[in-house]
Amino acid sequence: MDNKLMLMIPGPTPVPEQVLLALAKHPIGHRSGEFSKIMAEVTQNLKWLHQTQNDVLIVTASGTGAMEAGIINFLSPGDRILVGCNGKFGDRWAEIGEAYGLNVEKVTAEWGQPLDPEQFREKLEADTQKQIKAVIITHSETSTGVLNDLETVNRHVKAHGEALIIVDAVTSLGAVNLPVDAWGLDVVASGSQKAYMIPPGLGFVAVSPKAWEAYKTAKLPRYYLDLGKYRKDAAKNTTPFTPPVNLIVALQAALQMMQAEGLESIFNRHQRLTSATRAAIKALNLPLFAADNAASPAITSVAPQQVEAEQVRAIMKKHFDIVLAGGQDHLKGKIFRIGHLGFVSDRDILTAIASLEAALRELGYEGSTPGAGVAAATRVFAQ
Amino acid sequence: MDNKLMLMIPGPTPVPEQVLLALAKHPIGHRSGEFSKIMAEVTQNLKWLHQTQNDVLIVTASGTGAMEAGIINFLSPGDRILVGCNGKFGDRWAEIGEAYGLNVEKVTAEWGQPLDPEQFREKLEADTQKQIKAVIITHSETSTGVLNDLETVNRHVKAHGEALIIVDAVTSLGAVNLPVDAWGLDVVASGSQKAYMIPPGLGFVAVSPKAWEAYKTAKLPRYYLDLGKYRKDAAKNTTPFTPPVNLIVALQAALQMMQAEGLESIFNRHQRLTSATRAAIKALNLPLFAADNAASPAITSVAPQQVEAEQVRAIMKKHFDIVLAGGQDHLKGKIFRIGHLGFVSDRDILTAIASLEAALRELGYEGSTPGAGVAAATRVFAQ
Repeated sequence: MDNKLMLMIPGPTPVPEQVLLALAKHPIGHRSGEFSKIMAEVTQNLKWLHQTQNDVLIVTASGTGAMEAGIINFLSPGDRILVGCNGKFGDRWAEIGEAYGLNVEKVTAEWGQPLDPEQFREKLEADTQKQIKAVIITHSETSTGVLNDLETVNRHVKAHGEALIIVDAVTSLGAVNLPVDAWGLDVVASGSQKAYMIPPGLGFVAVSPKAWEAYKTAKLPRYYLDLGKYRKDAAKNTTPFTPPVNLIVALQAALQMMQAEGLESIFNRHQRLTSATRAAIKALNLPLFAADNAASPAITSVAPQQVEAEQVRAIMKKHFDIVLAGGQDHLKGKIFRIGHLGFVSDRDILTAIASLEAALRELGYEGSTPGAGVAAATRVFAQ
Repeated sequence: MDNKLMLMIPGPTPVPEQVLLALAKHPIGHRSGEFSKIMAEVTQNLKWLHQTQNDVLIVTASGTGAMEAGIINFLSPGDRILVGCNGKFGDRWAEIGEAYGLNVEKVTAEWGQPLDPEQFREKLEADTQKQIKAVIITHSETSTGVLNDLETVNRHVKAHGEALIIVDAVTSLGAVNLPVDAWGLDVVASGSQKAYMIPPGLGFVAVSPKAWEAYKTAKLPRYYLDLGKYRKDAAKNTTPFTPPVNLIVALQAALQMMQAEGLESIFNRHQRLTSATRAAIKALNLPLFAADNAASPAITSVAPQQVEAEQVRAIMKKHFDIVLAGGQDHLKGKIFRIGHLGFVSDRDILTAIASLEAALRELGYEGSTPGAGVAAATRVFAQ
């Protein structure tokens, strides 16, 4: 049905009406007092969202651009780095490191499994020469729906003492507790089209004083993504290059909504959506791709056996106008992914599960009692 | 007055209502058939706008990001390049080259003067060893309102035979004739918030087959702005990284408007707006910063003597809600700039000139007969 589309993918996520209307305002000049006022406000609110006093800088780029900025500003050619790889995005950060001539050592796990913090500990403890310059971790691995144990890995990085911790928080920031200062995270990158509830186009990078120390001697070439330029101009509430004014105004509206809801409520809501989704999938007797103790608050991956994942997605789209994500790379056709981050309510989960039950029925799936999924989700919401 | 803002700066430029409404649509999934259809259409229309069969790739970035992509994809450390520098943006491309370790040779002119093509000819003819790998030219120098003689410089580059011609067309593309194929331009970069009539956030890079040959051996590191990835995915009507869906939908609407107006009409309109603005400024006896034979079709710079440029801007903003641009770097306070590119009509020029006359009057300026500016602009429009 025209104009009925419901996005349940891990980005772009649904955008609230007041954010869309902010987006549609006539642009204002970016070298004006009015715009500087907006920049000052969003910068403050970004720090609130990140639970940090560190700089949080805005770049015009996708999440990958933000991550690249998070890598190239703090390292030099040949630097040894550890990269956690248990999905498409971990692999991507390894690729960026290699593209820039870093000495990349991967710490891997099967896609769908969390990274093992012990492997990081061993490598970091063995590095008595302190040659490891950074550890890069994808907090919520969007490709699989796995939440990596960042807190523990970070503890091992802190014990090492030298290495920076660089975090891909693209689908975790604003969905799960990520206290940047309390944990001492050096570089945290995220993107607008996720829990921020605005369309894609903005990347965010939080940078600690320790990371700025590394910046001083980092030798990888950079210009457009040179965060030093952004920091210098952010102090004057402006930007080194023309910012996407409309997206910044939309960001202002979205951050105001997030502040009104409150951090704890936002995290609780994402936890509740995740629990309800997973309870429903279990009640439908469909295999969850990630284990309960490593479940991302942003996305739930399902690996159906008796039905084809792509057929489920096709019917969900065709009959119910609900967009689910498919598997990426070697998981293509093997899983489907239900996004539940950002502007998503309990009602949306009931809608998605009810529609999923109908789609399964249409595919002749008989592995569960009709209504079992909705009933299970309802039980979670009733708690 | 609230909500009365009129932008007459060289970007962001005014955005038509139907483009704003397109921007405010709920985002759709970027890995969908619907989005691929939009990508296919905008790609075709971008080629039309560039008058080229070359690839025209879209990056999520400001114009500077597009230019950086235009440089780092085709060159290697130590490569000798000639960069035309007669304003802030020429200087910026030299800075990017230096940041990436290129051997940058500047060809300079005073800010406000056009580059001398003869200086390029001499250097290119002297380079019998064919060591010059690229010549970088800012077509319309936004900081001064000067249009450089790209056509002649390009002829000298073609006579050299080896060097690529890399063009900053950020404020010229869509405002003045720039036949990419007819002239054989290798790399042409532009940005969305200019003649495209959409908000900032998208960069565009047109790439010739000769530039793709250079890409094969170019050794500067890159990942997020690696145009090879964009080319590969563009062939499948998709993108390597999450595109700013809403801006792409806005681009679709804007390009449809441009097609309806027609290239020749668009160029004629910009020429007419420029002529009318310059005629008015002359009639007001204010000094134009760029000469008639080097006037940008995007922006007119004025260097007032008897009044302060910044005071003119302040009154234009305060009393008439018209935003003019100031001077940049050492031109700060010395010039003001009237943007007239993109969604700008004859009426807008009359409005701006009439308001400018009133502002001058308020500042006690007596260098011209009241109404002389509007009369001069009117005469141009009547032709």
